[in-house]
Amino acid sequence: MEPSANQDVYAVILAGGSGTRFWPLSREASPKQMLRIAGEDTLLRQTITRIHGFVPSENIWIVTTEDQAQELGFHIESLGPFTKKMRFINEPVGRNTAPAIGLTAIYLNHLSPESVMVVMPSDHAIPDREKFLDNLAPAVQGAKENYLITFGIRPSRPETGYGYIKADPSLEARFSGLHKVEGFFEKPNLETARRYLSEGNYFWNSGIFVWKVSTILSEIRTHLPSLYSTLKGIESLLFAPHKKDNLDQPSISQTAIPPPPWSTLYASLESVSIDYGVMERSQNTLMVPATFQWSDLGSWNALDDIVERDDRGNILKGNTIDIGSRDSIIFSGERLVATIGLKDMVVVDTPDATLVTAKEKVQEVRKIVEALKKNQREEHLFHKTVERPWGSYTVLERGIGYKIKRVVLKPRERLSLQLHRKRSEHWVVVAGTAKVTKGDETYTVHTNESTYIPMNAMHRLENPGEEPLQVIEVQNGDYLEEDDIERFQDDYGRKDHRGTP
Amino acid sequence: MEPSANQDVYAVILAGGSGTRFWPLSREASPKQMLRIAGEDTLLRQTITRIHGFVPSENIWIVTTEDQAQELGFHIESLGPFTKKMRFINEPVGRNTAPAIGLTAIYLNHLSPESVMVVMPSDHAIPDREKFLDNLAPAVQGAKENYLITFGIRPSRPETGYGYIKADPSLEARFSGLHKVEGFFEKPNLETARRYLSEGNYFWNSGIFVWKVSTILSEIRTHLPSLYSTLKGIESLLFAPHKKDNLDQPSISQTAIPPPPWSTLYASLESVSIDYGVMERSQNTLMVPATFQWSDLGSWNALDDIVERDDRGNILKGNTIDIGSRDSIIFSGERLVATIGLKDMVVVDTPDATLVTAKEKVQEVRKIVEALKKNQREEHLFHKTVERPWGSYTVLERGIGYKIKRVVLKPRERLSLQLHRKRSEHWVVVAGTAKVTKGDETYTVHTNESTYIPMNAMHRLENPGEEPLQVIEVQNGDYLEEDDIERFQDDYGRKDHRGTP
Repeated sequence: MEPSANQDVYAVILAGGSGTRFWPLSREASPKQMLRIAGEDTLLRQTITRIHGFVPSENIWIVTTEDQAQELGFHIESLGPFTKKMRFINEPVGRNTAPAIGLTAIYLNHLSPESVMVVMPSDHAIPDREKFLDNLAPAVQGAKENYLITFGIRPSRPETGYGYIKADPSLEARFSGLHKVEGFFEKPNLETARRYLSEGNYFWNSGIFVWKVSTILSEIRTHLPSLYSTLKGIESLLFAPHKKDNLDQPSISQTAIPPPPWSTLYASLESVSIDYGVMERSQNTLMVPATFQWSDLGSWNALDDIVERDDRGNILKGNTIDIGSRDSIIFSGERLVATIGLKDMVVVDTPDATLVTAKEKVQEVRKIVEALKKNQREEHLFHKTVERPWGSYTVLERGIGYKIKRVVLKPRERLSLQLHRKRSEHWVVVAGTAKVTKGDETYTVHTNESTYIPMNAMHRLENPGEEPLQVIEVQNGDYLEEDDIERFQDDYGRKDHRGTP
Repeated sequence: MEPSANQDVYAVILAGGSGTRFWPLSREASPKQMLRIAGEDTLLRQTITRIHGFVPSENIWIVTTEDQAQELGFHIESLGPFTKKMRFINEPVGRNTAPAIGLTAIYLNHLSPESVMVVMPSDHAIPDREKFLDNLAPAVQGAKENYLITFGIRPSRPETGYGYIKADPSLEARFSGLHKVEGFFEKPNLETARRYLSEGNYFWNSGIFVWKVSTILSEIRTHLPSLYSTLKGIESLLFAPHKKDNLDQPSISQTAIPPPPWSTLYASLESVSIDYGVMERSQNTLMVPATFQWSDLGSWNALDDIVERDDRGNILKGNTIDIGSRDSIIFSGERLVATIGLKDMVVVDTPDATLVTAKEKVQEVRKIVEALKKNQREEHLFHKTVERPWGSYTVLERGIGYKIKRVVLKPRERLSLQLHRKRSEHWVVVAGTAKVTKGDETYTVHTNESTYIPMNAMHRLENPGEEPLQVIEVQNGDYLEEDDIERFQDDYGRKDHRGTP
């Protein structure tokens, strides 16, 4: 099937982030890696597409937290059936990159200790796949010679928001396509950044790493001995003889994660980044001077690096009308955003919230999210449209005693068999044909017909057709939250109640 | 009832404007005078409230165009039953202020030629009613002595956006509370405006005028003889003996406006302002140096003159979160608008459109409206929520083959008896109790019940209760515009089809 793929190379995609820096487009339930902010697809799906084929499907592993795993699983399904072969490594809690990479290395050590790990953030932008893979080849070679390989991006400006790698190209003859790393440097001030730029041998630290499983475990033992010791403890719990079958079933389900106490051990780990904990301390590092375009998308402003700007320096997306703005980023969806005479501004519009900020203040969007949390608002948690494995729903309106949703059901999908204790529902079919189960009855509701689901009635909505089914649902009741759901059967293996009709 | 009111004084409120400068808050169907932009009520209703009591209800006349008269009538009803006594003068088409004032003077000449007209724009802001009335008293006195009286606003800055009046206060002893007008001056450049400010005897021209009917007609005869001649022609058509009963029924209905040919005569008039046509030419003008705060609200920026700003110079309204903005105007409704670090910006959010502009470019909002017109969009025509005499409706969503509305019906009101040729409707009652007529049946639909209105079925929705009735209406059909309505009986005398379910 994938004859040329590197059987001994594993892609480890770090997807535990829940960034707030792209609010209002990002929400707790829609973290940065799930956004379409640079390119046509979401950052996570672009990351998978970038590496898929270079390694076999089953060698693509996603590292995330238990909380996010199910959502991410639904999210990547649309890439195709191969995603079923991918594997999820679920951290019990987030503990930064060194523990996450260490945990993954423990699993791989059991499977194939001399294999190579390509560690990639899930939320960076790299538009050119071919160049990326060209750069990856020497990195894999270097890794096979027991080096820690990192990717340095040649700086285009004196950026103060990135860490830098100082590289020595004089040894390139010895390491084909690789530079010796002389040191890692934290985010510089502007003066220092200018010096780095003029000296020419400083590179931005991309956060992409390649190494052998045995190499990184050995480096962790040397530089993070406490982490190493805990990882060995976790290994013994995970791979005790009677647990061995856990590893034989790579899948996106969560069943590979054993219950405590290993999760308790993991939770006890100190949060530390692999950059700080290992890379900056090791003498064993080489760097690929990357030739691909890259951005870590640290804020809305980063789009200027990675998305093509018009001749006034603007990035306009969605339903916008602009008169005379310059060097601004204007993101809209279906609603109209009209802008006049902006300069160095960011405007981001979503169905329930709009952000308008000066580019130089864009980091303060975090404070907006904090304020929303503090005031128990919802604009930082969910979007009005929520993607589900069976389709999506959009909250069109909430009022006292009622809530209106548009429910879109993909062909041949169905919601779980469920009931609500505190609300009744009117369904009006506006496109397609619905198969409705209510109590013991099953019947068909066509376009322009409606049906009523009383409180406490077991029910199910199904799309038996080949076209999307659209239903307008008017809920009535005193309590209309998503957790009023008792689920009796679900095609998607969902048991929890959170936000999942 | 109103014993102290001035029986011989008429308030003439000019309400023909359809300004686009407050888009997206203003729309074609929601012109500036119907907006709540300065103060708690709309500008038109504030204007009526300001003068009501100083003159009797039946002496308050609204001058507008035929197109707008019905909407304005519904709009002012909420002020109370006295509005039923008010009178509408409907221009067949808009021809600027001189013809509008002349037409009104013709009607008044027939009724009471020696009465005093207080001419007021409907879309200016004057927060202090008492001060306004204090200033009005000497103006009425001056008018009774056959002068044309205008109001000058003492300038607070070298404004280049207003016309100026040069006044001579030395004659004040002769005209108590009034200054002699030495001249009118067009909008000056900045240098000239600064000189006006420093000289101290220049005032902003407010566009508020007081004069006797006989005086203004005489001045029009002198300075605009062609207009005068046409007005006399219109007078003879309007007040031919058999037409006399038109004047005996002051009301907000349109029945007072006879059919052509007088409207054809009116349409033939040249558009000219009363300022340019009469005030600037007459030697017979006096000015009240006004002590009240005033703004003509020529753009969003004008709010800075009339609305209290916070200690950072901002005006924030609605659902907003701001971090560190200065001297900006941020208007929101129910949707969240988050702003960071703005300086001299205007942000206006409505359910279907958002405007973000630099204050210095705010005049260019007209170009946005022009672009919307050109592209046959709807965001310049209507709001998502449309006020009707019986309540309001809000378009929650349009999709292919369906449209969803929330209909709110006031207590004891009902929609017209109607039918639709091209759509069926599902109604779900979410608050209150509905009385529904469908064909020959009449029945009750309670909260959490629904009913279905097939295509071509005669129907009516009624709120028999004392609380607002809320209905979610899901329309199905290939054609879902507002003009698919045949009306058989209507409590509000509506016969036309435009936008009026």
